Amino acid sequence: MLIKRSSWVLLYFKENRFYLARAGEGKLNTNEGIIDLDSLVNKSYGIKGKTHLGLEYIVSKPDLITLFKIFKRKTQVVYPKDIGTIVLLADICPGSLVVEAGTGSGFLTAILANFVKPSGKVFTYEVRREFQEVAIKNLTMVGLERYVEFKLKDIRKGIDEKEVDAVILDMPDPWNVADIAFSSLRSGGKIVCFLPTINQVERVVETLKERGFIMIEVREILERTYKVKRGETRPEVFMIGHTGYIVSGGKP
Amino acid sequence: MLIKRSSWVLLYFKENRFYLARAGEGKLNTNEGIIDLDSLVNKSYGIKGKTHLGLEYIVSKPDLITLFKIFKRKTQVVYPKDIGTIVLLADICPGSLVVEAGTGSGFLTAILANFVKPSGKVFTYEVRREFQEVAIKNLTMVGLERYVEFKLKDIRKGIDEKEVDAVILDMPDPWNVADIAFSSLRSGGKIVCFLPTINQVERVVETLKERGFIMIEVREILERTYKVKRGETRPEVFMIGHTGYIVSGGKP
Amino acid sequence: MLIKRSSWVLLYFKENRFYLARAGEGKLNTNEGIIDLDSLVNKSYGIKGKTHLGLEYIVSKPDLITLFKIFKRKTQVVYPKDIGTIVLLADICPGSLVVEAGTGSGFLTAILANFVKPSGKVFTYEVRREFQEVAIKNLTMVGLERYVEFKLKDIRKGIDEKEVDAVILDMPDPWNVADIAFSSLRSGGKIVCFLPTINQVERVVETLKERGFIMIEVREILERTYKVKRGETRPEVFMIGHTGYIVSGGKP
Amino acid sequence: MLIKRSSWVLLYFKENRFYLARAGEGKLNTNEGIIDLDSLVNKSYGIKGKTHLGLEYIVSKPDLITLFKIFKRKTQVVYPKDIGTIVLLADICPGSLVVEAGTGSGFLTAILANFVKPSGKVFTYEVRREFQEVAIKNLTMVGLERYVEFKLKDIRKGIDEKEVDAVILDMPDPWNVADIAFSSLRSGGKIVCFLPTINQVERVVETLKERGFIMIEVREILERTYKVKRGETRPEVFMIGHTGYIVSGGKP
Repeated sequence: MLIKRSSWVLLYFKENRFYLARAGEGKLNTNEGIIDLDSLVNKSYGIKGKTHLGLEYIVSKPDLITLFKIFKRKTQVVYPKDIGTIVLLADICPGSLVVEAGTGSGFLTAILANFVKPSGKVFTYEVRREFQEVAIKNLTMVGLERYVEFKLKDIRKGIDEKEVDAVILDMPDPWNVADIAFSSLRSGGKIVCFLPTINQVERVVETLKERGFIMIEVREILERTYKVKRGETRPEVFMIGHTGYIVSGGKP
Repeated sequence: MLIKRSSWVLLYFKENRFYLARAGEGKLNTNEGIIDLDSLVNKSYGIKGKTHLGLEYIVSKPDLITLFKIFKRKTQVVYPKDIGTIVLLADICPGSLVVEAGTGSGFLTAILANFVKPSGKVFTYEVRREFQEVAIKNLTMVGLERYVEFKLKDIRKGIDEKEVDAVILDMPDPWNVADIAFSSLRSGGKIVCFLPTINQVERVVETLKERGFIMIEVREILERTYKVKRGETRPEVFMIGHTGYIVSGGKP
Repeated sequence: MLIKRSSWVLLYFKENRFYLARAGEGKLNTNEGIIDLDSLVNKSYGIKGKTHLGLEYIVSKPDLITLFKIFKRKTQVVYPKDIGTIVLLADICPGSLVVEAGTGSGFLTAILANFVKPSGKVFTYEVRREFQEVAIKNLTMVGLERYVEFKLKDIRKGIDEKEVDAVILDMPDPWNVADIAFSSLRSGGKIVCFLPTINQVERVVETLKERGFIMIEVREILERTYKVKRGETRPEVFMIGHTGYIVSGGKP
Repeated sequence: MLIKRSSWVLLYFKENRFYLARAGEGKLNTNEGIIDLDSLVNKSYGIKGKTHLGLEYIVSKPDLITLFKIFKRKTQVVYPKDIGTIVLLADICPGSLVVEAGTGSGFLTAILANFVKPSGKVFTYEVRREFQEVAIKNLTMVGLERYVEFKLKDIRKGIDEKEVDAVILDMPDPWNVADIAFSSLRSGGKIVCFLPTINQVERVVETLKERGFIMIEVREILERTYKVKRGETRPEVFMIGHTGYIVSGGKP
């Protein structure tokens, strides 16, 4: 597989030492020396190169989660550990129609787009224009913007789409969207909310029950990473202790 | 949306009290009384019904994770909390070609098939015929068997497919497949192993590094569920303390 | 060290297979056969014996936590994982004067008594006579009752003791004792509350702050146990996911 | 209760804003202004004072865990969350004779001394003179040095004490002390090891079993702290993901 001009490459030196760049875009200065990005065009992924200091790197094709490192961040982002569970609970698959609010920096939007493509669509609502612009740039960088409709609109004022498969709410007051989400969802469609405080959880669970959602569940996902080396294996000392609670339910 | 004959329905009474059945397949005996499944055909999802004892239920369309309850289990199954992360780390999307071993009862196979369909494919290896048969039945029940090629073959003897996007190993000795997986993967393709003991983790990490995989990471996912009620909110007392460690890496 | 008549012995066969009994109290029927308890009197701890079926056991002196298995339980008990932290946060040491409510089955009372003895004292308040009776029996079995004053009184009506070092509240509404505890504590004395729901935590934290307590902290302790065997090491599958939150503070 | 010259005081402004100092030792410069430490002598704990900038603080008596902040650190220290459990598992109480290795900076030594005093004793082994000196200084600052015998000796070469109640090993190779510890312990005495890697755990568990220890258990303690405020309650974002595994066992 050949590296095309402008496509993203992962330049890997060793564990925890790698760079992301676009092939054909000049020179890249790194701690390990200068890398000639122009020379990578039309080479094969998997080849090895050397910096001007003689340090060796491998050229690889980055995956979507790794590409998140190039995303601009305007907001607190949703972590991969939570995204995987959110996608499963939302019962999303290729072809799904998904409503999301707010767009934020577009991390979750990108994952959703990647799972519903090519026939599905993500409708993502955001009220702050500058956030939307960042999200559009981020998704365009990874080629997923075509599966997304970016809406500059307050979702509390209504969801334009009907018979959608899932509504995913990463916003402070999802209880204000319970009615609107219920109307927009198809039968069997799912609602998933991501919330930092337990008080928000209490409130949205109550509202979802009152509105007629069923199968309501609340969970949080903790991820523990490990430093593995024969004879010296142990969990990492620092850990993210909290991101948010995930509340999910279904429309009957 | 109308309920077709033989399609799965979720018959929901209240939190933690629901049943799964197929429309049009006679009568279902429940603790809440008899439900007439024949009467559901051609009705709309979302309608309410009553058992012969007069108890009310809602008829809903079940999601894939909920449908797992109808799957026959021959083996320890992979939990949703882990599946979401595995799918993300494997960088799977619609159209992906995924190799999996072993098939087991087909839970992970079903999720993978659901994410790669309709243009992608899951090639799932299993050596025990009785497991494969259960898995085929399970996937057929949810209509996902068409996106899967079930292979009765020891993956340690070779992977027939080339240029695949991901290899997912839920087997006791994945180190015996490191070479084979490396050859089968495309550049940038991912390997993900799911392992119950830390000793297996140590061994496979070492083998993957030696074989040339990069970006190797080890994590475990802990899920904490909550009982939420205004003024009485707390985590559930019982928790699954361990399922397995997830080891992931990429081919350069 | 010789085994005295009526003292508790631990009869240990293998991991997870042991019994607690009193030397000199006849015969003990076990799954491994009959053990002659009379024959143990005046023997040394550490000797081995055999049941009538010929299975070997070791006679050992049980520690306090292990002896908890002989305690009668009338209530949900506090777990060792939490007790250790409660004792540290309460800044308890030999000689401390500690007020506790409620007594419950006396598990925490026993630990507190064991740490303040011989010159200190635990004043434990309980309103239900039947609980107090169980607790007195439990503490007497392990010889710690002499360091405890059992009070059949509602702590909400007042603490009789003054200048105490710590007040430990394992009761549903500790906010009703904040004033009383503040008056009873010496300068620098500690208050520790153990609470199952997050709502109780919110309320007591607010009350403690209003009342003038400082250095208020909230934590929970999760314990993960392991099955360790060379080459097969992993966390136990089942885990206690929640017991209670620990709220601590100090009187200036 | 009056503040004596040279005794430690906690000068508390608000949550997460406090200082530790000794009464009668001149002036203390803080972010909130200068505090006159001389003026505190013979005042009562609990009084309020003002800095030269007019900011108010409360003068309180610090507890032992808070005083740890004044300890000099030469080594990785044992966390309170682990210490509480270690103390319980070691079945320590007033009067206990406890052997510890290594001394390190003396944090665990201080807690042990505080629980065995006044009639018990801690025998703490350390091979590095500079660590021992720091530990002696630390324990002297909190007045606990009199309950400790500091030994500049490699515990692998032998434990001088006999019939001790507990041996606590915070050292990289506790398996080299299993025999020695077994000989030194009384019947029913406890051994507790604190270890950062799972490989050390595997090895010491094996050695302890071979040596005849019983009731061997392995656990780790995770502590989750909370930010509690009505309507905004959530776990803290950062968490210590790993300190060490605790291995415990008993001599029959």
